[in-house]
Amino acid sequence: MLEVASKIDALREQLPAATATGYFNAGTNGPISRAAHKAIVDAATDELNVGRIVPGVYQGHAENVERVRGLLSRLFGGQPNEFALTRSSNDGLSIALNGLDWAPGDEVVTTNLEHPLLFAPLGMLAHRYGIKIRIADIGNGSGDITAALERQMTSRTRVIALSHVMWSSGAIIDLASVSDLAHDHEALVIVDAAQSAGQVPINLPETNVDAYAMPGQKWLGCPEGTGALWIPSHRLTDFVPTYVRYCSCDQTGFVVPAPGSRRYEMGEAYAPAVLGMEAQLTFLLDEVGPEWMYERTRTLADHFLTRISTIHGITVCSPRGQIGGLVCFNVDGATPQDVTAALYEKNYTIRFVAYSPGPTVARASIAWWNSDEDVDGLIEELRRIAADPAAISTMGDA
Amino acid sequence: MLEVASKIDALREQLPAATATGYFNAGTNGPISRAAHKAIVDAATDELNVGRIVPGVYQGHAENVERVRGLLSRLFGGQPNEFALTRSSNDGLSIALNGLDWAPGDEVVTTNLEHPLLFAPLGMLAHRYGIKIRIADIGNGSGDITAALERQMTSRTRVIALSHVMWSSGAIIDLASVSDLAHDHEALVIVDAAQSAGQVPINLPETNVDAYAMPGQKWLGCPEGTGALWIPSHRLTDFVPTYVRYCSCDQTGFVVPAPGSRRYEMGEAYAPAVLGMEAQLTFLLDEVGPEWMYERTRTLADHFLTRISTIHGITVCSPRGQIGGLVCFNVDGATPQDVTAALYEKNYTIRFVAYSPGPTVARASIAWWNSDEDVDGLIEELRRIAADPAAISTMGDA
Repeated sequence: MLEVASKIDALREQLPAATATGYFNAGTNGPISRAAHKAIVDAATDELNVGRIVPGVYQGHAENVERVRGLLSRLFGGQPNEFALTRSSNDGLSIALNGLDWAPGDEVVTTNLEHPLLFAPLGMLAHRYGIKIRIADIGNGSGDITAALERQMTSRTRVIALSHVMWSSGAIIDLASVSDLAHDHEALVIVDAAQSAGQVPINLPETNVDAYAMPGQKWLGCPEGTGALWIPSHRLTDFVPTYVRYCSCDQTGFVVPAPGSRRYEMGEAYAPAVLGMEAQLTFLLDEVGPEWMYERTRTLADHFLTRISTIHGITVCSPRGQIGGLVCFNVDGATPQDVTAALYEKNYTIRFVAYSPGPTVARASIAWWNSDEDVDGLIEELRRIAADPAAISTMGDA
Repeated sequence: MLEVASKIDALREQLPAATATGYFNAGTNGPISRAAHKAIVDAATDELNVGRIVPGVYQGHAENVERVRGLLSRLFGGQPNEFALTRSSNDGLSIALNGLDWAPGDEVVTTNLEHPLLFAPLGMLAHRYGIKIRIADIGNGSGDITAALERQMTSRTRVIALSHVMWSSGAIIDLASVSDLAHDHEALVIVDAAQSAGQVPINLPETNVDAYAMPGQKWLGCPEGTGALWIPSHRLTDFVPTYVRYCSCDQTGFVVPAPGSRRYEMGEAYAPAVLGMEAQLTFLLDEVGPEWMYERTRTLADHFLTRISTIHGITVCSPRGQIGGLVCFNVDGATPQDVTAALYEKNYTIRFVAYSPGPTVARASIAWWNSDEDVDGLIEELRRIAADPAAISTMGDA
């Protein structure tokens, strides 16, 4: 225990934001490490003083990106050249979804629990190309997801698009099973990894999915505006690049995209932020350790879920044993908005999710950087709130 | 003169990179101001220490972007809500070009002088949708451009896509005339503003173009990975958003994009870089002054062009009187690559352009931040090189 305690203390020292509050909102943005910050500031200062036109500057940017691809491969499996750097999970989803040539009547199967930023690109495809969206009702994600999806499959299904970890319940989806279903129907699986990347163990080739769109800024703690899209080499033929930078082209309209998933990259990025991403991923791989971090996140969250389950007036909405660090719940007599605001006053930062017709819940992102004291403190605050919800409720306000 | 000299000195003090070299490559990347650097570092440090989950963080990001839109409107005309923030000119071109629903046989008219990053998205459209690219040969851009474009127009022309300032000749195109031609044919004008934004005076509504895609990092000196796409309000109906973040949507595929050009924004950006863009544009507007900067750039470049025109062995490729700050030339007996390398050894940073079948030239980006001594020093170095090109030539190397 001493070793664990000292490791946590040492790591938390590298994450100042994680000690400025009870940091339970990696689901929005994670804490940035000192190493990432230093990489960003050093690079920004070089740009100020040395400039951005020294010979080799573009080659340098390209080498930076290649190193990031290598780190993503170490963390998530897959080959380095299967990762395209993006701005967000939404960006990666847009790249993948627009990479198919849609015909009117084509269908996408998705679930009732998806984030609006998956429904948004799907809605745009429906608007432009007349595709149909079929929603599998998977409840809170705890049941037989594949069976629920299968009931929505038709001969026109071209894609199953869904999250790996559901943002409003925390449920982890068995992607390999979904991939089997999709591929049996000649359909592709496009995954919104907004909540999974950095929260739960991921071995991309084992998922057998066809596109996996990750954000940088959430559970990985990378700079905002970073992310990655994994498309395995054998699926490059299935997704056409839409916005293109890296390719060979001539003036008369002939074009050959770059090898690998780099073809899906726009390329122009704030170079210091890419270096920040590199430093942050290096920190996770070499100082935190992926296995340790996933296990601590899972263990802490299970402890939290178990404890608040016993509090009278609290209903846990996340399926125990099927989650990583995301725990969703409600408190009788108080809205999730009120619960979130009351906790913030006590310096615990969680968030609420309220996108009708999806579930309305309070959501705590329990992560490896939380101290045991943070988690137990949050539990005690919730116990106080549940004992007297009227004290924080604004529902009766004029 | 004293006043001008002291203004230049004071401004150059704000641009350390512009004094680290003879800075003649704004056409690749411009120098960043101390104010922009400070905004970036301050914001990055807040993110480290305070974190990115304090209440109001997204509203704050949105307000930052609105301020940038306001600054873009002040600098370029048009309404603030007509600007979408992007990553680059290539990104804006991709948004605009993918915003049309193309049919096989549709045509785009462009010119022989365009950058590969305009030909690249055009090539992808040709690949996916079977559109045809028609190239107007406009020489070095000094003749009757509109007439040359008109000869390529057919009943299938849907877009004229071209640069405002040609990257390999410096020629400024009369966009209002091109817009008249296009609109007479019910076609749209999509502009690659990679070299124009910050180099030459721009009044967007007066150009009457339909999409204008600017980079941040070149003549404006904003952080790389920033840019803006201007689409006037009356053209929102002509360009459908492809990658979408800002919209209302439901789960079954109905979607309403955000009002204004914000609908074309992905939104996730590195927030400190957006603040850096704000600080840089504020510096240009309030400390440099747009009229002064355009006039100084033009005057210095005209002086440079005039002087090197008289040097035996130098051929100027840019049309005098029709340029802003970009001056392209060749030296007899030396490749542009050799000229660029030899100048770099003397601490003058220019670049060469060599994308066959386009022209192969040495290119000096003369900008308002260059001192008179910088420009005259560059002229003298070129005089020395032209007098003895064999001394720098690698053409005969084994």
